[in-house]
Amino acid sequence: MLSAEDNDFLTLTGPSAPMGVLFRRFWQPVALSEELERDGPPKRVTILGEDLRLFRASDGAAGLVHPRCPHRGADLYFGRNEQGGIRCAYHGWKFATDGGCLEIPTLDPGPNRTTVEQRVRLPAYPTREQGGIVWAYLGPAAHQPALPAFEFNTLPDQHVFVSKKLQQCNWAQACEGGLDTAHFSFLHMAISNDEAVTTRAMARAEASAGQDRVRWLRQDGAPKFTIVAHPAGLVLGAARRADDDQLYWRISQFLMPNHGLAPNAFPGENYHGQCWVPIDDRSCWIFCYSWNPERPLTQAERDRFRGGFSVHAEVDADYIPVRRRENDYLIDREKQRTETYTGIDGVSEQDAAIQDSQGYIADRTNEYLGPTDIGVVRFRRLVMEAARAIDAGVEPEAAAHPGAYKVRAGGAVMPASVPLDAVMRERFGHPHGLAGA
Amino acid sequence: MLSAEDNDFLTLTGPSAPMGVLFRRFWQPVALSEELERDGPPKRVTILGEDLRLFRASDGAAGLVHPRCPHRGADLYFGRNEQGGIRCAYHGWKFATDGGCLEIPTLDPGPNRTTVEQRVRLPAYPTREQGGIVWAYLGPAAHQPALPAFEFNTLPDQHVFVSKKLQQCNWAQACEGGLDTAHFSFLHMAISNDEAVTTRAMARAEASAGQDRVRWLRQDGAPKFTIVAHPAGLVLGAARRADDDQLYWRISQFLMPNHGLAPNAFPGENYHGQCWVPIDDRSCWIFCYSWNPERPLTQAERDRFRGGFSVHAEVDADYIPVRRRENDYLIDREKQRTETYTGIDGVSEQDAAIQDSQGYIADRTNEYLGPTDIGVVRFRRLVMEAARAIDAGVEPEAAAHPGAYKVRAGGAVMPASVPLDAVMRERFGHPHGLAGA
Amino acid sequence: MLSAEDNDFLTLTGPSAPMGVLFRRFWQPVALSEELERDGPPKRVTILGEDLRLFRASDGAAGLVHPRCPHRGADLYFGRNEQGGIRCAYHGWKFATDGGCLEIPTLDPGPNRTTVEQRVRLPAYPTREQGGIVWAYLGPAAHQPALPAFEFNTLPDQHVFVSKKLQQCNWAQACEGGLDTAHFSFLHMAISNDEAVTTRAMARAEASAGQDRVRWLRQDGAPKFTIVAHPAGLVLGAARRADDDQLYWRISQFLMPNHGLAPNAFPGENYHGQCWVPIDDRSCWIFCYSWNPERPLTQAERDRFRGGFSVHAEVDADYIPVRRRENDYLIDREKQRTETYTGIDGVSEQDAAIQDSQGYIADRTNEYLGPTDIGVVRFRRLVMEAARAIDAGVEPEAAAHPGAYKVRAGGAVMPASVPLDAVMRERFGHPHGLAGA
Repeated sequence: MLSAEDNDFLTLTGPSAPMGVLFRRFWQPVALSEELERDGPPKRVTILGEDLRLFRASDGAAGLVHPRCPHRGADLYFGRNEQGGIRCAYHGWKFATDGGCLEIPTLDPGPNRTTVEQRVRLPAYPTREQGGIVWAYLGPAAHQPALPAFEFNTLPDQHVFVSKKLQQCNWAQACEGGLDTAHFSFLHMAISNDEAVTTRAMARAEASAGQDRVRWLRQDGAPKFTIVAHPAGLVLGAARRADDDQLYWRISQFLMPNHGLAPNAFPGENYHGQCWVPIDDRSCWIFCYSWNPERPLTQAERDRFRGGFSVHAEVDADYIPVRRRENDYLIDREKQRTETYTGIDGVSEQDAAIQDSQGYIADRTNEYLGPTDIGVVRFRRLVMEAARAIDAGVEPEAAAHPGAYKVRAGGAVMPASVPLDAVMRERFGHPHGLAGA
Repeated sequence: MLSAEDNDFLTLTGPSAPMGVLFRRFWQPVALSEELERDGPPKRVTILGEDLRLFRASDGAAGLVHPRCPHRGADLYFGRNEQGGIRCAYHGWKFATDGGCLEIPTLDPGPNRTTVEQRVRLPAYPTREQGGIVWAYLGPAAHQPALPAFEFNTLPDQHVFVSKKLQQCNWAQACEGGLDTAHFSFLHMAISNDEAVTTRAMARAEASAGQDRVRWLRQDGAPKFTIVAHPAGLVLGAARRADDDQLYWRISQFLMPNHGLAPNAFPGENYHGQCWVPIDDRSCWIFCYSWNPERPLTQAERDRFRGGFSVHAEVDADYIPVRRRENDYLIDREKQRTETYTGIDGVSEQDAAIQDSQGYIADRTNEYLGPTDIGVVRFRRLVMEAARAIDAGVEPEAAAHPGAYKVRAGGAVMPASVPLDAVMRERFGHPHGLAGA
Repeated sequence: MLSAEDNDFLTLTGPSAPMGVLFRRFWQPVALSEELERDGPPKRVTILGEDLRLFRASDGAAGLVHPRCPHRGADLYFGRNEQGGIRCAYHGWKFATDGGCLEIPTLDPGPNRTTVEQRVRLPAYPTREQGGIVWAYLGPAAHQPALPAFEFNTLPDQHVFVSKKLQQCNWAQACEGGLDTAHFSFLHMAISNDEAVTTRAMARAEASAGQDRVRWLRQDGAPKFTIVAHPAGLVLGAARRADDDQLYWRISQFLMPNHGLAPNAFPGENYHGQCWVPIDDRSCWIFCYSWNPERPLTQAERDRFRGGFSVHAEVDADYIPVRRRENDYLIDREKQRTETYTGIDGVSEQDAAIQDSQGYIADRTNEYLGPTDIGVVRFRRLVMEAARAIDAGVEPEAAAHPGAYKVRAGGAVMPASVPLDAVMRERFGHPHGLAGA
């Protein structure tokens, strides 16, 4: 439970909000690479409450710029992305991806015009492109960190799949939902004990890969959490009763300030992660990444991801989920009666429905938290303390440790006597799950 | 004419508004019985500015509850209405219709869990079901009255028809429109003197049953009002000139705090009433009830009501009128030129159009009231004085007299010399219209 | 660049805003004549932030009145426009075009009713009709001027074409766009040097009539402005380099407080003008007028104007442009790549797109004005000084000089040595372009 002030502190990410300042110490995904075409149409991008334009210039570089021409304020969305830059359609002023002014045709050519062209700038943010994602840094230049070394960013393209989906609520409750793995026992669970029905009902969940896992998830709605901090974030282990005095561990990761890795993967299976990027305080883009360090993803897997599977949603051409707030996620009350607790199709969509349903910004002044919510509590504490620290002059540790982001998360079955630290070493070869350690 | 302060006082019904406090001393219709199915989908219900969820449990009882699970605030609209209660789809917490907590699966079974289950409550309001309507009481338990004894609530189902329709303005001006029977001479009136045209143009009005009534209504736009107070509300008699020195009386009833009975019924005809239930301060649900104390309603009558007749509107599956604010009530300017003053089809729709047109909340600081508005003035005085009285510690008289609601309203033709008191005794057998008195 | 206060001062035109007071010293177009039918449906008209109803009575006069019946506030939009006036559909009160009360049927006929009928008034504004436009005066009666003597108002109907279109931004930036003729070199310009492509791409622009003009426009994005004040407004001359040491002059006119005449017409060609009438502070109606003083417009010309040509937009039955803010003006990125700087079809639509794109109200606190913006600067100064003068007791000069509005604007090619004053005398026979001088 938070005070109303702390709820605002946690959730608001505009330029002057403390959490907005923290976000602006980290590179943020702003688009999929596939959204941009060389010399193609500029795109409207809103991130952290800032309205921006994004375009790919002739040299392939992505420009993330202020939306308006400095001359008369015309929107560069209507501009012409030409050879080397974007030209305002009103009077022809032209700018490069870094915001430099290339041409002012309303002035006669000559030294005066050159002087003005050198003086006029279009505000622009630095961008990078990796792993199929365009990243941008919206913070002060003095604190610009290196790109985080996510494992999916280090693999050949064939091993990786990325997607993007709109979520119609504040980033923080969506992120909490990603870390709160206790909810699988209901939110994503089939009702029927019939194996065929269950398999069909859970066809979009990785967990459906094993009927044992489904059974253990169903039997225990009260997993025991162990949380371990590391330089880039938190390891969150949730242990459920399995068979023969064993525990079924589902271990997720939180990575500063807004990434989460999913807890399902057994060795050899695909890994999944998500990043909740605030559009404004009432909606966010979720960038989803799946990877397999051992082999390329198959075409069948890619097709399945694209159609909505695990963290990936079924979306339209604008990355808007087909099942969304406006249509009550196409809830099917008959399916809710006979097949699943939600009657909503898709793991991602079930998450979105319940997270959106907490309100555009969840009211954390009226919660009733219990033992299964300890991961949520630790997440809040971590990001809020980091945001407060900046104000006290202490920069976030994670920004200085890009290598600490190369971690994995997943599942394991171990005897009940084995503590999380040993489970991590056994499953991942490293207490924090560092890949290749 | 009211001051701006008094206009707010009359119209606003949120939990802390004085008129909201008055409404919360009375049972209010919140849904038609037909809207709820045992173990069926929960419904979103907003009433008096409060966002609520309504479901029918396995035992048939209706639960009107807070919209959010106490655990993490997930919306119970997405909950599963299972055996005996509603289960939150996030982590499986489950609640009974009275708000009691039935199960908390995120805690290990045992005494501690039982203690928490007994402590956690989902806020819930008491409900009753009668006459095809689900009623709820949103006020303090200490003041909970008996259900009002409307005649339609005492008759066999076959004698009764109920419906519901959205109105897109504040409750008070809609209620005023129901009491202001002077408007029939224009708002619901045909223009043509041709009997066939008139009959067609007024086919959805009970008054069309008699060409004499239509003629008297048309000839006199300035009926003389007599108002009589009684324990449950007001008798409002409006007398128009009829033939041979007789008066055509149209007598309506206002019943505290938001019911109105229609003035048309001659002996043997069907009776109609309405209840204006605020959704918020800019819209209301109107619950409509028709009954015949002497005989079952025919199937033809039910079909006619369902298609839009008298107080009943033609509505879609969500009880939204087909002819409504967004489409200008499908006004037909050619019909307005040749058939009726409005060019809008339907008595209910004509009422809605003109009442909505006064604004979402009518501005009563700029009226020009005259003799035909005396009923409106008395209505305002009655409810405003009752709301002020509660603040002074005096509970409303009507809440203590449920039997006083068993009244009728209707029409009569009497010699001009007969006063309203005698007209009531002659027409209804009782000075206030009490049925069976 | 303006301060935030001055930006508000320039743009806001509600009843109490200084610029709103200035606008209320001038007759404003409120509808096209074609929109009103004798005894036909009343129309909703919002102008200068005031919500009004407009109807044409049996005698042909247009009534621009308060939207609500004085009795109970019912909207006269639903009223019946009958013989001689509009009748409220609620209780039948009836009003003439001048707001006088014709009948109160809720009172018994007699001297008392007559007294009340004489006392009750529906607020109404004076109207005039000329040139296919209904004009209204919303200011104080003491300052009511004569109608401005636009040339198109003095010609036979066959010489004139008028239209109307919605613009979804503040009036001032749209008006500025009409005066800022420098933008033609990009906003309305074809990219290709191929004559056939250019002709097709610019088919909706008058300038396409001459390939020389297109070439001169393309070659010089930095025309030199000369501004001359006159009693009704400003002459704005923009000179571009032409061939053989000649200048290509494009001369527009600003006429107080919200008219602009287009700069293209060579002798014998059609003249075009626009008037930006605020609906509210975020949208305006643009009334467009084209005329030829020497000959009737041909049917082909009328058809072309109606389909979207020069200042005229392609609009739907409600005068809403087919290419508009909600659909990004149907921008065609392939056409933007190969044919025009905007990829948007239509001169009017190109203007609308770029002006709307400045925001609902352009932020003038962040501009970078240069030599080609001098016309915009002079326009702002003129209207702002006039608005300030009224507050100091000085009435606007233009309102007292209706004859000064009979001016023309257009193009000319002259030796570079000829100053604007001489160009005007040569091209129009008068230094301010007065027609027939």
